[in-house]
Amino acid sequence: MFAAVVRHRANTARAARSWDVSATFRSCCLDARCGFSSDAKPPFIDPFTEPPDASTFPAYHPKDYFSFELIHQSTKSNARVGRIHTPHGPIETPGFVAVGTNGALKAAPHGVLRRANLDLMFANTYHLMLQPGAGVVEQAGGLHTFMGRNKPLITDSGGFQVFSLGAIDASDKVNELKKRTKSKHKDGNGLIKQINETGVTFKSYRDGSVYELTPESSVAAQKQLGADIIIPLDELPPYGICDLTLKKSVFKSHRWEARSLRTHLLDLKNQAMYGVVHGGVNDELRELSATYLSSLPFDGFAIGGSLGKDTEELVSMLRKVLRILPDDKPNHVLGIGDPQSVEACVSLGADTFDSTFPTRSARHGSLLTKTRGRINVRNKKFKTLFEPPCWECPCSLCKHHSLAYLHHLDRAKEPMAWTLATEHNLHYMGGMMKELREGILRNEV
Amino acid sequence: MFAAVVRHRANTARAARSWDVSATFRSCCLDARCGFSSDAKPPFIDPFTEPPDASTFPAYHPKDYFSFELIHQSTKSNARVGRIHTPHGPIETPGFVAVGTNGALKAAPHGVLRRANLDLMFANTYHLMLQPGAGVVEQAGGLHTFMGRNKPLITDSGGFQVFSLGAIDASDKVNELKKRTKSKHKDGNGLIKQINETGVTFKSYRDGSVYELTPESSVAAQKQLGADIIIPLDELPPYGICDLTLKKSVFKSHRWEARSLRTHLLDLKNQAMYGVVHGGVNDELRELSATYLSSLPFDGFAIGGSLGKDTEELVSMLRKVLRILPDDKPNHVLGIGDPQSVEACVSLGADTFDSTFPTRSARHGSLLTKTRGRINVRNKKFKTLFEPPCWECPCSLCKHHSLAYLHHLDRAKEPMAWTLATEHNLHYMGGMMKELREGILRNEV
Repeated sequence: MFAAVVRHRANTARAARSWDVSATFRSCCLDARCGFSSDAKPPFIDPFTEPPDASTFPAYHPKDYFSFELIHQSTKSNARVGRIHTPHGPIETPGFVAVGTNGALKAAPHGVLRRANLDLMFANTYHLMLQPGAGVVEQAGGLHTFMGRNKPLITDSGGFQVFSLGAIDASDKVNELKKRTKSKHKDGNGLIKQINETGVTFKSYRDGSVYELTPESSVAAQKQLGADIIIPLDELPPYGICDLTLKKSVFKSHRWEARSLRTHLLDLKNQAMYGVVHGGVNDELRELSATYLSSLPFDGFAIGGSLGKDTEELVSMLRKVLRILPDDKPNHVLGIGDPQSVEACVSLGADTFDSTFPTRSARHGSLLTKTRGRINVRNKKFKTLFEPPCWECPCSLCKHHSLAYLHHLDRAKEPMAWTLATEHNLHYMGGMMKELREGILRNEV
Repeated sequence: MFAAVVRHRANTARAARSWDVSATFRSCCLDARCGFSSDAKPPFIDPFTEPPDASTFPAYHPKDYFSFELIHQSTKSNARVGRIHTPHGPIETPGFVAVGTNGALKAAPHGVLRRANLDLMFANTYHLMLQPGAGVVEQAGGLHTFMGRNKPLITDSGGFQVFSLGAIDASDKVNELKKRTKSKHKDGNGLIKQINETGVTFKSYRDGSVYELTPESSVAAQKQLGADIIIPLDELPPYGICDLTLKKSVFKSHRWEARSLRTHLLDLKNQAMYGVVHGGVNDELRELSATYLSSLPFDGFAIGGSLGKDTEELVSMLRKVLRILPDDKPNHVLGIGDPQSVEACVSLGADTFDSTFPTRSARHGSLLTKTRGRINVRNKKFKTLFEPPCWECPCSLCKHHSLAYLHHLDRAKEPMAWTLATEHNLHYMGGMMKELREGILRNEV
């Protein structure tokens, strides 16, 4: 047994660290450090119940609306250049995926993704279920129509937000969301009301109304949203749980993912589903998870859960997982967006990555640049630096403005500071991925 | 004597109403309702001291870098179509002028002005003096370069903000700015420290540091900013003052404007200066002001101060003023932006108008539309209205999105709601002005 040092999708590490598991989950093992139980409420089942065998599923059949085309395998590393064909156009890989939680990038029009050469956009089922409601999006004709985006979209299951927002503790006063949660809709145990084999019942952070998220209801909501790629419901165990509990959680995720897949297969609706590999940084569990999920007829695979405390642990884990996952299907690393980690993952053969990192850090004044490195425009040295962040970047900030102007807008609290910085960082990510693809084609990556 | 019912530049009516003049200015006349003195601190001079005669100024000489071209005078009304030629391109008139206080539109890139057919943009000297400082802008090469805008700009003197923000009272808790003012930098008498014949001394609402704004320093700052059109320092008397005090204020504004003009004439720097006509809704004072200022070698004229409590009073005042102002120079109505007032002013021969109304109301969910009138997208009836606000509007919102999507973004507190609504309202204003120009050319306006 070990105190797992985990990274809960890098972009929400802070939220993960703040989890007070004892307030949310009853203890289930003898390790006092482990307060997490994935089966705290009935119906109880043996937590090590095996998920259904692959033989109970139909064999995988290639889809005419979704496929992965391998363009080039580097001779220098496991890096590869590919293209994912979707009903809303191709996704060049390796590719970075920008996050538009509510069906919109924060402070930037999603048209910027095209200009930044970013093909895929991530939206969050949890948020869209609560506002405006998956039914409203379906009425609009699906998320593409609702958003006015005719490019590929991916949605998650909603589980990640339920498990991370759900365990917010009353002692946590970090941000407005948490304050609202505390003051309006909390009953002392966070927003999760019940978690069992069926699924998870939680209260909306917006108005306190109660929702049930099950593998079936998550898939149903994602069918209403209609993204090109959807994700089965999984369980996100919090930081610091023991191996035994992590194993139970992996088993439950497998059972939930199998149920999600069965629901999806009943009505494909031109959507692809990626299985989510779990197991934290436990090699044995990651192998178990990758092996089991690879046996099911998923269209691709995401690597989720705790990805390690640093790039080294991430790389070590990912190397093993990617060796097991099938080469002829695309893979996606959930919650990774810092350039260093992305580059490391690409050389292992990872295809896509999503993270709020470039957009969120932009709103805090942080710019990713090729020649200056990562800089914070709030630094007073930029007050009179009348140069763009990058001379060659084609974004609006670099083409038309200076660091001094952005510094001024940020100090004046002008929303355009967010917009310009966000667009810049997305261009940086798009440019970096393009260079990586070109490097792979030359066998230099 | 009468209790003047005034409109303090329509877009700041609320701020004007909240002035507690007694806290800021010592009483100067026998009317208990009038607590305003424009000469509360030394050096004292006779408040009815005449401004310098026109004969002490050089005669007006046409500029090669700035001129007004009359294209068509309507046969139906006093409405006229014209073109103001500036060093940064033409301004088609009648034209609406968007306000970018800090050298940026709130929540929208200023590139949208070109797409919306709006030629001139307004920036505020007061805000730019305080952040980043006129010197920084000058170092950048002027406001056009600093902002990355190669189109016409106009700046005001800074006086309007000093006089409106300066009189904020501790009892006023309406908005964040006022709260900050109250908690950090207030000494019980607002931010104005001293007001006399020389100018006004005030504390920055940002950090409490003390600034002196005089006719000379305002022009100097505007020379550093380098806008195409600049405004002389004037005094903005608050709501509810008596005729006698208003008259003193008009006299002082004339003296200040004459000093501003003299300073400007020393070094034109390819800038035009508009005199600002004052006098509230007092016909006699308006006539006096328009007559005096018309005698000075200004390049154009703005109509400022209190413009009346409603469109009727505005029209009545403006009709008289525009009869006096010279036809061969452009005029500008300060702080008018609601479509009804703009249309009324255009028929009287007004050329340009600035207001935060379309952009600020957009951030509060208010959309200007041709077929639906003025609507608030926060109304729940828009939750499932999958139609654009206007079918024919070329803005991003109307081309790519629906009212339901905007309603969702607004409820989800996504900054893109502000951006899309702002761009729409600016397109509306641009479209309306274009239609007015076309109507005048057909003698239908």
